[in-house]
Amino acid sequence: MITRIGRSLTIDGAYIHSYAAVVGKKEGEGPIGNEFDKICDDTTLGQSSWEKAESTLLKQAIDLCVSKSNVPVKDYDMIFCGDLLDQCMGSTMAVRSMGIPTIGLYGACSTMAEGLVLAGLCAGAGVTNHALVTAESHFCSAERQFRFPLGYGGQRTPTSQWTVTGAGVAAVSPTASAICIKDVTPGRIVDMGVTDANNMGAAMAPAALDTLVSFFTDTATAPDDYDLIITGDLGQVGSEILRDLMQREGKPLGANYTDCGLMIYDRDRQDVHAGGSGCGCAASVLCGYLLPRIENGTLNNVLFMATGALMSPTSSQQGMSIPSIAHLVHLTHA
Amino acid sequence: MITRIGRSLTIDGAYIHSYAAVVGKKEGEGPIGNEFDKICDDTTLGQSSWEKAESTLLKQAIDLCVSKSNVPVKDYDMIFCGDLLDQCMGSTMAVRSMGIPTIGLYGACSTMAEGLVLAGLCAGAGVTNHALVTAESHFCSAERQFRFPLGYGGQRTPTSQWTVTGAGVAAVSPTASAICIKDVTPGRIVDMGVTDANNMGAAMAPAALDTLVSFFTDTATAPDDYDLIITGDLGQVGSEILRDLMQREGKPLGANYTDCGLMIYDRDRQDVHAGGSGCGCAASVLCGYLLPRIENGTLNNVLFMATGALMSPTSSQQGMSIPSIAHLVHLTHA
Repeated sequence: MITRIGRSLTIDGAYIHSYAAVVGKKEGEGPIGNEFDKICDDTTLGQSSWEKAESTLLKQAIDLCVSKSNVPVKDYDMIFCGDLLDQCMGSTMAVRSMGIPTIGLYGACSTMAEGLVLAGLCAGAGVTNHALVTAESHFCSAERQFRFPLGYGGQRTPTSQWTVTGAGVAAVSPTASAICIKDVTPGRIVDMGVTDANNMGAAMAPAALDTLVSFFTDTATAPDDYDLIITGDLGQVGSEILRDLMQREGKPLGANYTDCGLMIYDRDRQDVHAGGSGCGCAASVLCGYLLPRIENGTLNNVLFMATGALMSPTSSQQGMSIPSIAHLVHLTHA
Repeated sequence: MITRIGRSLTIDGAYIHSYAAVVGKKEGEGPIGNEFDKICDDTTLGQSSWEKAESTLLKQAIDLCVSKSNVPVKDYDMIFCGDLLDQCMGSTMAVRSMGIPTIGLYGACSTMAEGLVLAGLCAGAGVTNHALVTAESHFCSAERQFRFPLGYGGQRTPTSQWTVTGAGVAAVSPTASAICIKDVTPGRIVDMGVTDANNMGAAMAPAALDTLVSFFTDTATAPDDYDLIITGDLGQVGSEILRDLMQREGKPLGANYTDCGLMIYDRDRQDVHAGGSGCGCAASVLCGYLLPRIENGTLNNVLFMATGALMSPTSSQQGMSIPSIAHLVHLTHA
């Protein structure tokens, strides 16, 4: 059962009943490193290319999530997946042998939330009994695709973010569990003219504002009503801009606001500049850190909003600004 | 109201109430050239890059579809869009100023059917009142991204297909109209090991088989029960393979089977080798040729199945085989 309130949709009957997160070595050494299901110390994952490594990372997270769910693979009736790579190669290669109906997504770093929006709606509408939502990224495949070849050793600007090597997978079902997908707000594209692909936080913050304000208006709630409001990967620069913009909207974000890109690394110690980014950032923090806490009731009422910068290397080279999007998922302890 | 039967989903309450197709010069000169809403004789569409031209092509089709729908843009509550370009730049740039919640898709040439699957389900579940589904491609942006720079003048193999310069847009609503989305079957990824990116028809045919056989089994119907069964862009090679495979399954396809890639060009006259391909092939043939005929009752019972080859230039260079997918939409005159 789904009810529309403005742009937001209230869902009756969508739950997350299994989840898993697998990350790379650097993420394993970060402040929440011990929260992940698995840390891959070999960043190649034994593969002959970074793209294959990324795909293998996701496959491991999928296998873990499915195994923890106690639902056989053949009973999954939909998989929502996407990533940052051209033609979403990472997720396609990871899921191609599974034999599950597949909905390929492109939402850049917003993919995990985009998938949860669709999976939540499909569970609530009785379309799916067991759906998987996946997102992953790999520092090495993203860096060489979006910026420079790794061996070039290019300098990183202070506003740049570090693409997370990580994958998150969640299983969504209409059967009640301790984690409820209560509301979703699909994002609109917002483009304020930022052209610097090394400052994605600034490009994405206005999209986060747009979705967050819509959600608060639709639900007649305010930031203080939530245990935690967490954006996907605005990083230091973007999350400060979001705080500033929300202040101006008269809905200031307090100590209950943070960003996955600020949680996954120790910025003083790990040389990641403005923080983490990539599809795998929000996905692995959600599935490694947040969902266990919602499941056990440490967190009861969480707004998870993954943000995506929808530029391509070609659009950047052609001088175009960065369209951004933020999808919101309201998760509660049930 | 949605009912699951096996892999397929029967929808009660999803209709297409507006549609538009805009194509390039070559498509306008083809056998169904006079079916499209608009033919752009200038392939650049007055833009400074092929990617911007592709985006402009889609924007024109969106504007036409919205205008024909008599529904103001602000009343659209979701847009499902995607294309072939890295990071789906074409559709992102086309929809970024519309202010409509956006679900970005990646399904390669299956995108139009993938979007209709989701839009059909959302309409049937009461999630959306007015949704847009879009897909587009441009020969020049696709050719240089997936194969060779245009100026290189590379030889094309006999099995290669010609990427359609075209865009198709459909508006989906729960309000009854003459075109009903009756059933959908989301596709599974099938990969039979074909590695030749110049023979996508062969790579995609097994995916089409998988979805089509599932649909016939789920609905207890046979090919003869339909006025028309049309695949997205298997072209000459792929559609012959599909005929052969269906014959072996004991469900032979008769004269009521064809392929959008065979309809859009005159292969004798237009030098397109195995036929048309690209997201815009199935999308423009659907919105230019098929939907008007379903609307006026010339066609009453149609299976539209867009097929996608989910390879990337990187996966091809790394010698990986081509994972393929086919999403099916059952359209009826209501």
